[in-house]
Amino acid sequence: MGVCGCGKTTFGRRLAIQLGALFIEGDELHPAVNIEKMSNGVPLADEDRFPWLEIIRKHCDDAFKDAHIETVVVACSALKKSYRRLLRENTAETWFVHLKGDEKTIASRMAERDGHFMPNSLIESQFATLEDPLLEPNAIELDIREDGAELCRQVEQVLDIDGVTFSSDVDFRLNPHLGLIGLGVMGQNLAFNIADKGYALHSWDVDESRRRAYCESVSPISPDSISSGLNKVATDQGKSVKCHDSMEELVSNTVSPRSILLMIKAGKAVDDVMQRLLPLLDRGDVVVDLGNSHYKDTDRRCELAGNHGVRFVGCGISGGSEGARWGALTDAWGDQVAARMLRGLFADVAASYGGEPCVAWIGPAGAGHFVKMVHNGIEYADMQLISEAYHLMRKGLGMESAEIAATFSRWNRGPLESYLIQATAKIFTAKEPDGTALVERILDRAGQKGTGSWAVEASLESGVPATQISDAVFARIISSLKTDRQRYAKLYELDRDTLLGSELSETGLSETAKKQFIDELELGLYCAKVISYIQGFMLMANVSKQRDWNLNFMKIASIWRAGCIIRGGLLHDIVDAYRQNMNENTNTNLLEALKFQQVLRDHQGAMREVVKFGVGRGIPLPNFVGALTFFDSIRTASLPANLIQAQRDYFGAHTFERTDQPEGQFFHANWDELIQESNL
Amino acid sequence: MGVCGCGKTTFGRRLAIQLGALFIEGDELHPAVNIEKMSNGVPLADEDRFPWLEIIRKHCDDAFKDAHIETVVVACSALKKSYRRLLRENTAETWFVHLKGDEKTIASRMAERDGHFMPNSLIESQFATLEDPLLEPNAIELDIREDGAELCRQVEQVLDIDGVTFSSDVDFRLNPHLGLIGLGVMGQNLAFNIADKGYALHSWDVDESRRRAYCESVSPISPDSISSGLNKVATDQGKSVKCHDSMEELVSNTVSPRSILLMIKAGKAVDDVMQRLLPLLDRGDVVVDLGNSHYKDTDRRCELAGNHGVRFVGCGISGGSEGARWGALTDAWGDQVAARMLRGLFADVAASYGGEPCVAWIGPAGAGHFVKMVHNGIEYADMQLISEAYHLMRKGLGMESAEIAATFSRWNRGPLESYLIQATAKIFTAKEPDGTALVERILDRAGQKGTGSWAVEASLESGVPATQISDAVFARIISSLKTDRQRYAKLYELDRDTLLGSELSETGLSETAKKQFIDELELGLYCAKVISYIQGFMLMANVSKQRDWNLNFMKIASIWRAGCIIRGGLLHDIVDAYRQNMNENTNTNLLEALKFQQVLRDHQGAMREVVKFGVGRGIPLPNFVGALTFFDSIRTASLPANLIQAQRDYFGAHTFERTDQPEGQFFHANWDELIQESNL
Repeated sequence: MGVCGCGKTTFGRRLAIQLGALFIEGDELHPAVNIEKMSNGVPLADEDRFPWLEIIRKHCDDAFKDAHIETVVVACSALKKSYRRLLRENTAETWFVHLKGDEKTIASRMAERDGHFMPNSLIESQFATLEDPLLEPNAIELDIREDGAELCRQVEQVLDIDGVTFSSDVDFRLNPHLGLIGLGVMGQNLAFNIADKGYALHSWDVDESRRRAYCESVSPISPDSISSGLNKVATDQGKSVKCHDSMEELVSNTVSPRSILLMIKAGKAVDDVMQRLLPLLDRGDVVVDLGNSHYKDTDRRCELAGNHGVRFVGCGISGGSEGARWGALTDAWGDQVAARMLRGLFADVAASYGGEPCVAWIGPAGAGHFVKMVHNGIEYADMQLISEAYHLMRKGLGMESAEIAATFSRWNRGPLESYLIQATAKIFTAKEPDGTALVERILDRAGQKGTGSWAVEASLESGVPATQISDAVFARIISSLKTDRQRYAKLYELDRDTLLGSELSETGLSETAKKQFIDELELGLYCAKVISYIQGFMLMANVSKQRDWNLNFMKIASIWRAGCIIRGGLLHDIVDAYRQNMNENTNTNLLEALKFQQVLRDHQGAMREVVKFGVGRGIPLPNFVGALTFFDSIRTASLPANLIQAQRDYFGAHTFERTDQPEGQFFHANWDELIQESNL
Repeated sequence: MGVCGCGKTTFGRRLAIQLGALFIEGDELHPAVNIEKMSNGVPLADEDRFPWLEIIRKHCDDAFKDAHIETVVVACSALKKSYRRLLRENTAETWFVHLKGDEKTIASRMAERDGHFMPNSLIESQFATLEDPLLEPNAIELDIREDGAELCRQVEQVLDIDGVTFSSDVDFRLNPHLGLIGLGVMGQNLAFNIADKGYALHSWDVDESRRRAYCESVSPISPDSISSGLNKVATDQGKSVKCHDSMEELVSNTVSPRSILLMIKAGKAVDDVMQRLLPLLDRGDVVVDLGNSHYKDTDRRCELAGNHGVRFVGCGISGGSEGARWGALTDAWGDQVAARMLRGLFADVAASYGGEPCVAWIGPAGAGHFVKMVHNGIEYADMQLISEAYHLMRKGLGMESAEIAATFSRWNRGPLESYLIQATAKIFTAKEPDGTALVERILDRAGQKGTGSWAVEASLESGVPATQISDAVFARIISSLKTDRQRYAKLYELDRDTLLGSELSETGLSETAKKQFIDELELGLYCAKVISYIQGFMLMANVSKQRDWNLNFMKIASIWRAGCIIRGGLLHDIVDAYRQNMNENTNTNLLEALKFQQVLRDHQGAMREVVKFGVGRGIPLPNFVGALTFFDSIRTASLPANLIQAQRDYFGAHTFERTDQPEGQFFHANWDELIQESNL
């Protein structure tokens, strides 16, 4: 955009080539009546321009119907805000690049030019009409005295890679208009964390009692309260956490561009808040959903917010309440423009690994929440595997909690090193007043709503055998049927006679055998864990491909190395594996990484021994047997699914492929004729 | 309804009590201006009545907003069709009970009555206005000379149990206006089946080439073509299959009440047909979706069709193409009124067992498709288990196809007796020209979209551990990754050294050991199959409870005994188990049935041996290990989920229940204080 003679057409064509975009010359779309006016030196009035702008927008809209066109560069003066508003009113993201020059430069350029229908006499009126686009979002200004290559470079710098645009002039690190809605355990800790980093934070919660409790915990803010505890945290570096009585008050106490963080329960609560919040916000504000929302909900909300001119970001946080408080992992988000605006803030809030904040732009719309969902699915499998190892120790080996704690602690110094193994070791040292380990008094009934089930559904939908997540979710479901289990335990008590084989009828093991088994358990657990992670990355790889997200798995593994619940040594190996493969193909399955080939080849025997131990003693090990079954399935060239296909064709004419014919050719057999003995 | 003095108020109050319904006295809702007119002997005009009827309908609508009110009885003259149409226009199902008497009876009743604002002089005008409701659907007529108790009995007979109403005067067995949309393999076979039973059938398919091929296969219809083959079938008993060129033609060649059967691919295709079809139909027509639609789609389509006054029925058919042709199982459907209308037709078309057609009304809306989905889920598990047994025979025991066929054939004479085992035996006798079993030339890659995945999602949603279905679906997913498997098979080839334990390094077995193992395999397969069915019925029981469907499991197992793919001896045992428990609690888990207690107690050892055999040899057995894991989980009073709860409370303050406190009380531990060694 810019006044006549500023070089829109020349630069626009060049930029379009650079960006692989379609170029549209706005002037060519003027109705004849406008061209005539301009040729006669009659300035166009608004009523002349609006129909023309409509035509331009129509051409853009039509262009985007072609699936191959992602970007369109339009040369169009677009001098007034109202013209630009009209042009912005299509579904695409619209940026204005203002080619700015002074009247003298423009006039000399016009003089050099021939064959254009705009006489110099109109330049003055153009400058009079021009309204500065920099007062609006998504606009940049270029100095036309610089050469075209440099201007292209400047635009590209703003547009960044992948054709995704950035507003470089807003940084929420410098912007005090930061809100947080949701003051539950995670929300409160995040608030303290943010305040800790020197940000003023405006907060609110729909629950009045929670809001009040929180308000009281952070006020009064006075210099002498800066000693220790919550108030110190809340007022560190002179910044403060402000608690508002209503969402409206929170919004009216901040100015645009705001950044409003949501830390509320996934599902309807988010929609409820969005419905109230969006009408209160201004165009260009940013809303960040930090909860465990379903990634498809995030897709939908991005669109909904976009309709209000608000940028929506779906961002996963892992690390639990402690993580939120002391440096959570903020692992992923959607809208890349908002991401640029937020990156300083998030880098401050996030955990860091080797000096790098564990925070990254993952992909568009729901990609961030999808990756967080897979993280949680892996977490489900990790926790289930650890609990199965504990089950074997307690029931199979008769170990006491102190010994179990010591074992997990020792494991934490080996290949299993991780936050969860360490936490488990600690947990087994927590005692009740009577000396019993607290964990033994906790009811064995775990819930499973949300990310775990969603990850299973995503696996089914995308056709990825993420059985470790599925088995872990179903294990929690069975755990929840406590009353049933107690009843069936009586009906189906195991006795020695029902178990076959010599080793099965023994319940005790010699000390040597026990030590040996614990070592096998460590390696078996390690193998099974490796398989869980391999599956998780397979799930991400497949969905990334199907959704064209182009996820960067090395980056994902990198930011999982600190802050989050599944952090541990294995993630370093995964980062290394992807780094080594980076020059070939980042989407390589981790099963092919040399490191994991070695682990699984060398230690699968331990996994088999652990499974046989459980099978013989009637100790259920869903994720150990699931890991082994997956491993044995994926490394079997010929599975018996040929029989399933035969059956389906036999009874339902579903057809099948043949091993001796190209894939994708389907055959139906006339079974009645082929079957040689029908009286079977 | 009925003229003044027919006894609407007296009988209405009585009926409402009998039905547990709310009673609304229409006359009390007249605007004052109407009451004045009537008191002055001025007959009401339509413009007087419509506002009043609107008020009545509003009262009904408001009543239904109360969750406790399911039925409303309204006393209202409703003499004209137009008045009734207005009253029918709410979301509920509306029936008109006409209290009919002659003028003399009415006049003498009016004379006995005091204090009513309707003078006798209006009786004549009332009779003149009365339009017979029996010409509309959902109406019955009672003779007011009979006493109230008898009238109530008559209404109840029509309304049947559960407050669900029936139109007893339409029977699609007597109605030739029967259409079929969808002429794929299943549709064509169903068409022949229906024609076979003497019905005229109007049919159409969206695919023109399929339509033409079908039309040619059923015409010309001439007496001398009645010999054998398709034409005989299509014209048996003088009835015929008519093929139309368009949906519009099909509809215009039939009259209301029509019954239109859909046999089309689940999903968008059904919605597309519905969108075109519904506007063509008349109120009271019936649409039956016989495909494998998602039960939630059926819920939605019932509502959509209801908005057009059309009854929608979701009905599952199992039995494959052969079943559709020669007597399919029609297993379940939704709208109970339509069910009554269709039962004669469906009984003719369905397979039968012991003289009883395998067809039943299952529950409202999507219940029928839900039950069919679970049937398919069980079918997935059955097929997977059989294919795993085959895998063991081929790879573990080195058996040839003839021996495998003989083994399955022998098994089919034991507890495993079933259609699928028999079909498998037959399949192994089907040979290629070179003598190889055809099944060995079929690619081992099975698809899994649709009912299988949906059953897994339903399990997750309702919290039922239907792991056999889930494992079978994921086994198909892994089978589909053929190229990956071939690659990983090279990376992870098993050698003797990686396998531990003496028996694992052997690949061959002695003849005696082999025979013994095959017997164990039979019993292990039987146990695992029993567990699949137990899970399937658990899934139905839970969703039935959550959705208040009141499913009858004995009936469901009964209709699965013939026609459908999973038919077999086990279903007799399930019917027996439910019959024995019927007087106690039909929802009892099959794990508690004595028969299955005995099976699982006696033969679980065989299941363990089979699993160990596979684990040792690297032969993946997802559904065998899954069955055993489920069994060992559900019969374990104390699972290690207490550790998972401890971990969740440790890192996320998620709280836990305690074994020494009542259920439903949640605690949070201050782990930092309790942990005794934090430097682990």
